[in-house]
Amino acid sequence: MPVSFEVIHRSQENQGRVGRLITPHGQIDTPVFMPVGTLATVKTMSSDELAQLGVGILLCNTYHLYLRPGHHLIQRAGGLHRFMNWPRAILTDSGGFQVFSLAHLRTVDEKGVTFRSHLDGSTHFIGPEESMAIQEALGADIAMAFDECVPYPSTYEYTAKSVALTSQWAERCLKVHRREDQALFGIVQGGMFPDLRRRSALEIVQMGFPGYAIGGLSVGEPKELMNEMLDVTVPLLPEDKPRYLMGVGSPDYLFEGVERGVDMFDCVWPTRLARHGTAMTGDGRIIIRDAAYAEDLGPLDPRCGCYVCRNYSRAYLRHLLKAKEILGLRLVTWHNLAFLLELMNAIRAALREGRFASLKASFLAKYYGNTKEGFSGSRRT
Amino acid sequence: MPVSFEVIHRSQENQGRVGRLITPHGQIDTPVFMPVGTLATVKTMSSDELAQLGVGILLCNTYHLYLRPGHHLIQRAGGLHRFMNWPRAILTDSGGFQVFSLAHLRTVDEKGVTFRSHLDGSTHFIGPEESMAIQEALGADIAMAFDECVPYPSTYEYTAKSVALTSQWAERCLKVHRREDQALFGIVQGGMFPDLRRRSALEIVQMGFPGYAIGGLSVGEPKELMNEMLDVTVPLLPEDKPRYLMGVGSPDYLFEGVERGVDMFDCVWPTRLARHGTAMTGDGRIIIRDAAYAEDLGPLDPRCGCYVCRNYSRAYLRHLLKAKEILGLRLVTWHNLAFLLELMNAIRAALREGRFASLKASFLAKYYGNTKEGFSGSRRT
Repeated sequence: MPVSFEVIHRSQENQGRVGRLITPHGQIDTPVFMPVGTLATVKTMSSDELAQLGVGILLCNTYHLYLRPGHHLIQRAGGLHRFMNWPRAILTDSGGFQVFSLAHLRTVDEKGVTFRSHLDGSTHFIGPEESMAIQEALGADIAMAFDECVPYPSTYEYTAKSVALTSQWAERCLKVHRREDQALFGIVQGGMFPDLRRRSALEIVQMGFPGYAIGGLSVGEPKELMNEMLDVTVPLLPEDKPRYLMGVGSPDYLFEGVERGVDMFDCVWPTRLARHGTAMTGDGRIIIRDAAYAEDLGPLDPRCGCYVCRNYSRAYLRHLLKAKEILGLRLVTWHNLAFLLELMNAIRAALREGRFASLKASFLAKYYGNTKEGFSGSRRT
Repeated sequence: MPVSFEVIHRSQENQGRVGRLITPHGQIDTPVFMPVGTLATVKTMSSDELAQLGVGILLCNTYHLYLRPGHHLIQRAGGLHRFMNWPRAILTDSGGFQVFSLAHLRTVDEKGVTFRSHLDGSTHFIGPEESMAIQEALGADIAMAFDECVPYPSTYEYTAKSVALTSQWAERCLKVHRREDQALFGIVQGGMFPDLRRRSALEIVQMGFPGYAIGGLSVGEPKELMNEMLDVTVPLLPEDKPRYLMGVGSPDYLFEGVERGVDMFDCVWPTRLARHGTAMTGDGRIIIRDAAYAEDLGPLDPRCGCYVCRNYSRAYLRHLLKAKEILGLRLVTWHNLAFLLELMNAIRAALREGRFASLKASFLAKYYGNTKEGFSGSRRT
């Protein structure tokens, strides 16, 4: 088994658990947030910096890497780890989410998806077999089954068909997946319909994957609806396997997922926020470009101990961002990742020490203050 | 004396020397190349990375920092070192070169230069007194006298007047410069006229600065003309003071300067080249975006031991640049700086070991090959 998982501690307060994900490229404490390195780079960051931050696992995007530089090149380079100089774990998505996001650029049938490249309009086909071949060439520690992620909202009929298709594709993925040093995770779909979520979970779990993702959430639905779908789905997933909620990375959603028993998350949210000049702090988000910070010689977040907060002022960061200096994007990205990784550390400690609810209440009250933050508006790309 | 200089070794082959520049923020082996951090950041790089590369001194631009974020803010932040988190030495230029580059946006009289900001068109005035006040607020280890850098070509009459103005301004700079922990260097001008170069050198040297720059070269003239001006000027500068050739950073020009006795250089050349996707290698420059490197799994420069060459392939770097990933710009900048710093190490060793001429011949033959590289086309901005 290339990837294994152990639950170290079960919360008494809720369904949350602390665990350990063991991969060919290191062990990872869960619940874990995985930064997104779409094109074999977490935007603005070097792999050494990610390691320094304590990142143990990254997500890379199969669709993007298939189009460029191409999975054959990456395979010849010795795989994704070597190509991007990242010695720790990697998870690749299946390409499904991106391909379905292309909307009018794609057509779906039972075989798979025919789509046109967003780069040059050229026509391509990816089905379960192709996704497996590409992901095996990329050589991540964890590959994902090729699924259909339905948009929100979708009709019951469409979603039911899609659940059937996703199950069929999952079986085909299992059948052709060969790589012994790579784990293949299944994905549960079912849109916003409890019975379809249940059906999908039962079918996918029956196939016996070493890990399970919950797909098709955090796609624009209200948080309550996401929570409801998690409440239906998670209890149907095996206790002893890792559970991965795809595309989630804003603090409130992380808390919701963790307390329902989710172990893994990914999102472009913190890194994209950073590139738009917004820093996450314990007192909420700040838009660094604001004139209010022009003369502010304090750190981004006075309670943060990260490299950026130890060495740079808001005034300097604002200056860099205003002047469009790359270092500004780097430093804010660094801080946001540090902030989110530190939040995950705090969450794991709180789970172990029986004070998750209190951490959740105090963190969210400070972070969101009086503002009501709805859907984070972002996902993995 | 805030900055002192000692000559450690004099070449037997030429006028070159190995020296040591001692500043309040560390000692620097000379001849030295100073990377340019125009806006209080060497574009794409962090200050830690520069330290890791062995950079001992940076140049920052007074004109740019005066306009944004403003020298008052930097002063309140504790000076440029603290503002940009750079514990080693800094040299600021006088702002003169940039102001004169504004061409139709400025008018000159004896008092100084009235100019319009390239950012918002607002009107400003900088004369010798203002340049000193700004540079003292920035707080670099070395400040430069406010001078007029004449364009190439200029008439004899214009250049002669400019030499007189530069001398007058240098005296005014000396008179108002107060900061005891900052050295003020004089600048020799004189365009492409040997007698004006001599006159300027004699006048400036008589004022007794702790270091001397040679300005107004590498502004578009043929290399032979620059060499001729250096041959006229350098012998008139005191042996025991550092000599700084402004705006020079391409390998051939560095060799020319070093063998004529220059100790310090600065240029945006290697970092700007990098951001345009060109890497410097022992076998010449390579344009990484070229299709030729798409499948090239070797390092940028097989003989380079830098972080980038040890860890990344040309194919990966090309992928990053094609995809407009910031990490690509960072890594090529890193390599080019490493390459140039290593060249300076090699030059110092060759001076000490009496094999400068042989290093120059072999390096330039390999680097430029059969192509004739003229003026580098770049300067500090």
